[in-house]
Amino acid sequence: MNKIRLALIGFGSVGREFCRIIRERGSEWEDKFGCSFPITAITTASRGSLINPEGIDISRALEEITSHGRFREENPDRSDITSMEAAALDSNDVVVEISTLNIESGRPAADHISTALKAGKHVITANKGPVAFYYRELVELTRKADRRFLFEGVVMDGAPVFNLVRETLPGCTIKGFRGILNSTTNFILCSMEKGMTFEEALRNAQEMGWAEADPSMDIEGWDAAAKTAVLINVLMDGNLTPSRITRTGISGINSDQIRTAKRNNKVIKLICEGYLNKNGEVMGMVAPVALPESDRMAGIEGTSSLLELTTDLAGKVSIIIDDPKIGETAYALISDLLTICRQINLLND
Amino acid sequence: MNKIRLALIGFGSVGREFCRIIRERGSEWEDKFGCSFPITAITTASRGSLINPEGIDISRALEEITSHGRFREENPDRSDITSMEAAALDSNDVVVEISTLNIESGRPAADHISTALKAGKHVITANKGPVAFYYRELVELTRKADRRFLFEGVVMDGAPVFNLVRETLPGCTIKGFRGILNSTTNFILCSMEKGMTFEEALRNAQEMGWAEADPSMDIEGWDAAAKTAVLINVLMDGNLTPSRITRTGISGINSDQIRTAKRNNKVIKLICEGYLNKNGEVMGMVAPVALPESDRMAGIEGTSSLLELTTDLAGKVSIIIDDPKIGETAYALISDLLTICRQINLLND
Repeated sequence: MNKIRLALIGFGSVGREFCRIIRERGSEWEDKFGCSFPITAITTASRGSLINPEGIDISRALEEITSHGRFREENPDRSDITSMEAAALDSNDVVVEISTLNIESGRPAADHISTALKAGKHVITANKGPVAFYYRELVELTRKADRRFLFEGVVMDGAPVFNLVRETLPGCTIKGFRGILNSTTNFILCSMEKGMTFEEALRNAQEMGWAEADPSMDIEGWDAAAKTAVLINVLMDGNLTPSRITRTGISGINSDQIRTAKRNNKVIKLICEGYLNKNGEVMGMVAPVALPESDRMAGIEGTSSLLELTTDLAGKVSIIIDDPKIGETAYALISDLLTICRQINLLND
Repeated sequence: MNKIRLALIGFGSVGREFCRIIRERGSEWEDKFGCSFPITAITTASRGSLINPEGIDISRALEEITSHGRFREENPDRSDITSMEAAALDSNDVVVEISTLNIESGRPAADHISTALKAGKHVITANKGPVAFYYRELVELTRKADRRFLFEGVVMDGAPVFNLVRETLPGCTIKGFRGILNSTTNFILCSMEKGMTFEEALRNAQEMGWAEADPSMDIEGWDAAAKTAVLINVLMDGNLTPSRITRTGISGINSDQIRTAKRNNKVIKLICEGYLNKNGEVMGMVAPVALPESDRMAGIEGTSSLLELTTDLAGKVSIIIDDPKIGETAYALISDLLTICRQINLLND
């Protein structure tokens, strides 16, 4: 039986769901793939940390966070280890970076990742900061370390985007893309379509858990710009940070504009776009656009997402994920984990 | 420089486009991947055959077919070799099976493929017959021969379907699917939406090259049923031939029905479906269905296709290809070819 030991940097809702899936599917995968996935470290900024080279008791860890909001002092695996230390521990093979996003710098997540790679670990992440800010550096580090660095969850939750292009469109060049990639703003715009004001729609999104207490990251288009930068850097060989993306958010959209669009059979959506300008430079844009009702993107409801890729050889290919929940975001990490195991020939499949 | 020698069984429009792409991109791929793709044999049923272990002159072959409808006697590579002989030739590494579809038995294409596998060749095909009728046998043969057998072009042209599930959704179980997968019937239904009668729409499709002189294979839902069977066998571990799919074509659809649907804001589409029944058995269905205009499938126009997969871990994921041309079907073969080269570690990527 092969064994891949995991260290989790961060233990928010995605990390906890990741652990639940590993716990529920673990024995099935042991049978199917001949590989087990013990979690040997979990670090958090304010809820304590756990470490056990033989494998942490996941049920206990989940229960403590749920009931007490933190890991308890009585937990025999309780430790004072920092995230940076955990990233380089001998007792892990893959570091799962899911700490809180810092959209202005991508740090310290990027530092956790580079520390892990330098220590010879593979890395998977759902954190868009490091990929938006340090993609080329991290790829170079990955190459030097002869390890893997995957980040499927950064865009469109569990739907394949990066794996789609890398694994299923070999020889293709991506000439451009267009998509709806930020759930919060799409949820708000859909609520406004149904008659809510911007303020009501935002409050509704916050109550449903789709918007943060400080929603500016989503509303002002920063999250969408970060994803656009990531897609440009990874799929189109560009080199842009989020601030280089031409960006308009949805805070300027009011009910009148929504109604006027509707009278003209149009729907306002926050569109992300990557394209080549006349000089062949890769450019990125995020902006609200009034689309005809018949446009496929106009029909993307709530927290669903769509990405349309224009390719040289495969034509126009689109991928859609409908109503993703937290489980689908966590699956993106599972998908990266299994992809790495397969690539390093640890899976019997 | 690695070298993968290709034998083409069949040289219809997809085969010719495949050769054009290889000719145009060949030197780029030599630089990028360190691998060249000489075509060492082409066999046809009635246009003659060519063979040259060093590589056929592709431009000449294409020119002869275009200008004379067949390979000329003067061509130094002209040969009387049969398709079955070519499938086993020492001078090829990968057999590209693109002979004419036989929807009733999947043969002789399935025989070409098994002959090639037994002779130690990898096989790629865009021919749905063999996969619809002999999937399990061919997979077993592939396993025994320790070779690869890929068929991305069988469903949705150049859009990834099988690679999508195998390479980008690891650990996921496909619980069901729904899609629009036959271009001819969709093109006809869209023309009827615009006011044509069934007969006018069919004639129009034939003039545009989207329907055969004998269109019954498409019209009666056989092509859609074959694709449904393939998806069920490959993605859902089923074991159904096309005749086991519950099948209704579109020959019974008239302008009145289209108009009635329209009055109710509905659109009639030929839907393919795979699902588990109450006993957990995999079932397949092809039938015209009146969908609400707001349904994403209702918006699939002309020759575009959509496949929606319901998964256990990644939620509902859809893939769409818009307006594919012959080049996109040929790309499916290119994609399989590069995937095999990558899997056997022949690509520098």
